[in-house]
Amino acid sequence: MDETEKIRVGIVGFGTVGAGVVECLQNNGATIARRAGVRPVVQRIADLDITSDRGVTVPDDVLTTDVGQVLTGEDIDIVVELVGGTNVAKDCIMRALQHGKPVVTANKALLAEHGEEIFEAAEASSADVFYEASVGGGIPIIKAMREGLIANRFSEIVGILNGTCNYILTKMEKEGATFEEVLYAAQAAGYAEADPSVDVDGHDAAHKATILSSLAYGEWFGLDPVYVEGIRGLELEDLRNAANLGYRIKLLAIIKQHDNDVQMRVHPALINASSLVAHVNDVYNAVWIEGDTVGGTMYYGQGAGSRPTASAVTADIVDVALNFKLGSHGRIPAFRPHAGYARILPMEEVHSRYYLRLQVKNAPGVLARISTVLGEKQISIASLTQEEATHPSASLIILTHAAPEGNMQNALQALHQLDEVLQKPVMLRIEDLSADPQAN
Amino acid sequence: MDETEKIRVGIVGFGTVGAGVVECLQNNGATIARRAGVRPVVQRIADLDITSDRGVTVPDDVLTTDVGQVLTGEDIDIVVELVGGTNVAKDCIMRALQHGKPVVTANKALLAEHGEEIFEAAEASSADVFYEASVGGGIPIIKAMREGLIANRFSEIVGILNGTCNYILTKMEKEGATFEEVLYAAQAAGYAEADPSVDVDGHDAAHKATILSSLAYGEWFGLDPVYVEGIRGLELEDLRNAANLGYRIKLLAIIKQHDNDVQMRVHPALINASSLVAHVNDVYNAVWIEGDTVGGTMYYGQGAGSRPTASAVTADIVDVALNFKLGSHGRIPAFRPHAGYARILPMEEVHSRYYLRLQVKNAPGVLARISTVLGEKQISIASLTQEEATHPSASLIILTHAAPEGNMQNALQALHQLDEVLQKPVMLRIEDLSADPQAN
Repeated sequence: MDETEKIRVGIVGFGTVGAGVVECLQNNGATIARRAGVRPVVQRIADLDITSDRGVTVPDDVLTTDVGQVLTGEDIDIVVELVGGTNVAKDCIMRALQHGKPVVTANKALLAEHGEEIFEAAEASSADVFYEASVGGGIPIIKAMREGLIANRFSEIVGILNGTCNYILTKMEKEGATFEEVLYAAQAAGYAEADPSVDVDGHDAAHKATILSSLAYGEWFGLDPVYVEGIRGLELEDLRNAANLGYRIKLLAIIKQHDNDVQMRVHPALINASSLVAHVNDVYNAVWIEGDTVGGTMYYGQGAGSRPTASAVTADIVDVALNFKLGSHGRIPAFRPHAGYARILPMEEVHSRYYLRLQVKNAPGVLARISTVLGEKQISIASLTQEEATHPSASLIILTHAAPEGNMQNALQALHQLDEVLQKPVMLRIEDLSADPQAN
Repeated sequence: MDETEKIRVGIVGFGTVGAGVVECLQNNGATIARRAGVRPVVQRIADLDITSDRGVTVPDDVLTTDVGQVLTGEDIDIVVELVGGTNVAKDCIMRALQHGKPVVTANKALLAEHGEEIFEAAEASSADVFYEASVGGGIPIIKAMREGLIANRFSEIVGILNGTCNYILTKMEKEGATFEEVLYAAQAAGYAEADPSVDVDGHDAAHKATILSSLAYGEWFGLDPVYVEGIRGLELEDLRNAANLGYRIKLLAIIKQHDNDVQMRVHPALINASSLVAHVNDVYNAVWIEGDTVGGTMYYGQGAGSRPTASAVTADIVDVALNFKLGSHGRIPAFRPHAGYARILPMEEVHSRYYLRLQVKNAPGVLARISTVLGEKQISIASLTQEEATHPSASLIILTHAAPEGNMQNALQALHQLDEVLQKPVMLRIEDLSADPQAN
């Protein structure tokens, strides 16, 4: 192969990730070319703002405010969409595909919401669409799942997919600060968005979860089947209790197939403190994947940021470039339906173990009342701790055996109505990684 | 694409991995076909023994004792070499390549020793050679390194690459058993070979280390530049001391580039107990990779066994099958030189921190003698612990600051010659993962 064969890359959106891709190709372009046998070069970058300093130097004729020069330009072989959001980004990608340009994108929200439409356009144009950076930042998790682990049926995928939430939870744990305190500090330092909802309410993790579950189970699910709860309102007390019980609390994306039922959910959960996933801290992401052939595997790295994301985007560029050079586009199609499940398990049928914290009157008969309610809902108590009570109220910590979510929700309602229960009960799910040898 | 397009696979060697591949394609072949758009089918299996029960059922006409039917058969599209060893296996692969057949192999020893010859033959025949299963068992680590992380220069690769050693070390730690006790039990249970040397003396890890470093630094290094020490003779006392100091002992493959010097070594080492790599137990493998673009990443899974290995072999089969179907062979060549380093750092120039255990006379002036020797060799003491001595001898535990290996070897000789030092000093290196946020 001629390693000097150049592939001309057009980038839409010159933000931190765009600058990271430019920097990466400037620093490592020659090495990439020697490794890959093809050399991606940044031919053009379109952005409304082409004057701000991004910390990288590009020739003036590379920059343009005319997005059409990238999306439809004769001299562009690959379009990289780094606009973000779901409106302009979608228009860009559709226009590029209609002009037969292969596309690389990091846009999880767009794929989660409009993946099918984009993939149809890609197929109609026989153009590649790659999106490694959409999940897990720099971790090559999509390549691992759909190529490296193609021989597997996936029984369990558990991910820490949002770096902001993981950072907040790690700080709360280590510094004993409240959610609000950590979030405020993170915003002040620029680690969290001014409007943190997409991150802390679990939506970003849900975008990523639906992409992973779609790849695993062969249908582009979109966001509807994903149950979502964020970490807003998590209390320090529960992080401490979890630690004392041998667990840590993480915002997990949990994807499972059992008896042909698929479940997808994002919520905070207790996981065994000795499991590998429990050791993933700060802004790092990790994905635990259990396959029937490979067993348990895990992938870990930075889930966001200019360089890690650029690492994934650049790898996609090389994949597309190789297909461009060899005429092998569609070798790994953007998405290939291969549905191998029967139904989406409704959340009320999901089985978990549970952590309950009840603030109760410190009076005779309270325990009997509570255990009666749980018993009526078929929820069996595994352990119960009552803190030494010197006040008129006491804190009860209950771990349960596995029970359906529906039963637990009924129990929570019933408990809340008891006179002896003084506050809304706190309920957190416990996630057991079945194939993790460290956690069993 | 026509997902029913069949690719005919010929397997040489019907051992546990071969049976695993057959089982995988029987159970998941239809799913793989729907995902990949191509369906690998086992057309023929050659083995000297075609009568033993392997736990899988194959039609009689699939089995043959005539290896030529696989290597040169008109009805074979891909040859899978699962013979093991370096003689017959090499002949098989060369013969298959000479007949233009693409090859999938799991044979790390063969690649480490004869990779270049095989890759030349592959290039001459324009035939693919894939070898994902040669390192890290079921972990798609080779795909991650040379595709997913292609945009990176690799400053640090640290792997737990031998499951037998990791199992032995985990058992020693958890059960307080000696190396010999655990090895004997593992042999009795079939987890370790009757001749365990390839595993416990570090050679298997070295085979895998040289493959990873070759992919990282672009020259097929072979085994010569790899410094190798195994775990034979590791004493429980040192595992316990390490634990008390906040470390764990693992057999690590350590590959680094610094100032264009590349170092490759396999030896037991202390690593910070809070690092992710320290939490990799039992037969599990893990590879920590630090890239300049992506930062720190880690990949974890089972490093051996029928099914995990079959997962990797089958993924390779699909890769080759797609290239076969699309005419894109050589898209990811077996190996593409891209040398980006200046020299192999001689072991004596490698800098580490060190753990020393000295059995010394319990007498005045001993500490002064020892620190003088270390000072003369430019080795600076970071911490020193002397166990309460009730005997005529005492145990000194010293952690040092970083120093060149050569200085340490000189110091060890000099210390051994001191009258006050009663036994050969125990020296273990300490490995610091620079980019691991958990370990800093």
